[in-house]
Amino acid sequence: MVTNVEKPYVMGIDIGGTNSVFGIVDARGTVLAVDKIKTQKYEKIEDYVEALTSGMKALIKANDAEGKIKGIGVGAPNGNYYTGTIEFAPNLPWKGVIPLANLISEKMGVPCALTNDANAAAIGEMTYGAARGMKDFIMITLGTGVGSGVVCNGQLVYGHDGFAGELGHVTIRRENGRLCGCGRKGCLEAYASATGVARSAREILTSSTEPSSLRDIPAEEITSLDVFNAAKAGDKIAKEIFEFTGKILGEAFVDFIAFTSPEAIVLFGGLAHAGDLLFEPIQRTIDENVMPIFKGKTKLLMSELKDADAAVLGASALGWEI
Amino acid sequence: MVTNVEKPYVMGIDIGGTNSVFGIVDARGTVLAVDKIKTQKYEKIEDYVEALTSGMKALIKANDAEGKIKGIGVGAPNGNYYTGTIEFAPNLPWKGVIPLANLISEKMGVPCALTNDANAAAIGEMTYGAARGMKDFIMITLGTGVGSGVVCNGQLVYGHDGFAGELGHVTIRRENGRLCGCGRKGCLEAYASATGVARSAREILTSSTEPSSLRDIPAEEITSLDVFNAAKAGDKIAKEIFEFTGKILGEAFVDFIAFTSPEAIVLFGGLAHAGDLLFEPIQRTIDENVMPIFKGKTKLLMSELKDADAAVLGASALGWEI
Repeated sequence: MVTNVEKPYVMGIDIGGTNSVFGIVDARGTVLAVDKIKTQKYEKIEDYVEALTSGMKALIKANDAEGKIKGIGVGAPNGNYYTGTIEFAPNLPWKGVIPLANLISEKMGVPCALTNDANAAAIGEMTYGAARGMKDFIMITLGTGVGSGVVCNGQLVYGHDGFAGELGHVTIRRENGRLCGCGRKGCLEAYASATGVARSAREILTSSTEPSSLRDIPAEEITSLDVFNAAKAGDKIAKEIFEFTGKILGEAFVDFIAFTSPEAIVLFGGLAHAGDLLFEPIQRTIDENVMPIFKGKTKLLMSELKDADAAVLGASALGWEI
Repeated sequence: MVTNVEKPYVMGIDIGGTNSVFGIVDARGTVLAVDKIKTQKYEKIEDYVEALTSGMKALIKANDAEGKIKGIGVGAPNGNYYTGTIEFAPNLPWKGVIPLANLISEKMGVPCALTNDANAAAIGEMTYGAARGMKDFIMITLGTGVGSGVVCNGQLVYGHDGFAGELGHVTIRRENGRLCGCGRKGCLEAYASATGVARSAREILTSSTEPSSLRDIPAEEITSLDVFNAAKAGDKIAKEIFEFTGKILGEAFVDFIAFTSPEAIVLFGGLAHAGDLLFEPIQRTIDENVMPIFKGKTKLLMSELKDADAAVLGASALGWEI
């Protein structure tokens, strides 16, 4: 990170299917101010960029930060770092390949870089969070899906096409694997995402006769939060669901460790807050299955970025690197 | 690679359980001269280094290369690039942690770097072979074991401890997986190494009643070369064995592609010479299973390093980077 007396701030933009949140961030990772616009409100990308950059300029003015922005970082689904484009994002209104980094940069007169949300989280963690000072780590985001950012030699791994790090879609169950949202079978995401956990709940409740408070909820409505609350209250089935999820994640992490031998695997997102309910079975599965040469070497850490700020903070961190 | 008029050569050393082969290499990847000593003959590391460096000096003198060696690269089992040490290598005579790069460098008065054999092969391929000009690729060595070297952003991935890239030991069969030499179960190496192929042969011959020329060989003596020769002659069972091996490799490569999105996966070693017998089922399995976003992007290539020279050439390539 290169800070600069004259330009002490960066801006981060987190583009989600519902909201686009943007904020001004300083070198210590303090989010000075944030605002947002509705992503879905703008069918034409020109209108979206106009609304977004107007909002950004207003935020800059209100915070007396004119001329003080070093760079702008964007985290977006299907974001390609190499080209600064969003490519065929299923949950955004604009189809095809959108040169968003250029469009923003032109309007703002500030350099802009773009990557996908999980990569932005990894850069944020390396700049401000649990991975400060690390050159080799893997960020895993456990949300509606499972995302990842892989850092080797202090650099994010983008691959030859800009799309590396799809660790939510390694195959963790080759036989009778669950159908994944990507159309393939047995992906990690089909088990370890919030929706995967809800699905595990339905499966385990069906295959067991054990009493559980989760049986009071209509099966199709059970969420990973319900499972967490039940497990915290001591519900045996709910704990078994976390045990199963942790085992699956641990098995995947054993392979990830053999691949890039990270100093740490950092977990981020709603499910990561389950704490020991999830961390304990992950750690045990790693310890029991990892190659002897890697035993006890890779730390399992919880993200140190606050959830509310994390996406903007992660994206903003890219702004220092331009 | 930085060449130099005054020091136009590097030396490569390939340390195997039986022989230690060393050679002088120029910037075009021509091996000018090679020689070797018996690794097992020297129980004390000091005696080994004395014999090795005496041999190297003699080779340098005989080729009029005194003062012309820019650097020395070593490929060795359990070689740690960060420390230049060989650590607890089961098939070498010296126990514990051996600071081999330093020992060689002191005797030769030339900088020396060391890594494991598969990483050396990857650097060799990037410097002289099929991966020239590539910044993101994965080298897979199919020999007695399955080794790998992962290159991202033009750099070899060593991980935080120097031991990254153990792709032979990702778990490819979680249920009823074969016991691997590493003591774990279901590793890629237990299926896709030469010994893995021989084991597949025994399994498939047992479970089938199909006639096969392989039935003329005592089951425990069947080698991967026997299977290759039978398959080339049209033997149906032998072809099925390659089909099975290719499918396993293809499944593993699908996950590797999701991880680092390489421009190419380069195959090296005896089995790679099976050509289409192996490449065709690998490619088909990738095409059928890879995430849509990666479809058709990653090339499957055969190494362009000659087998006889490859190990020395790969190790020597490290000599340019010091």
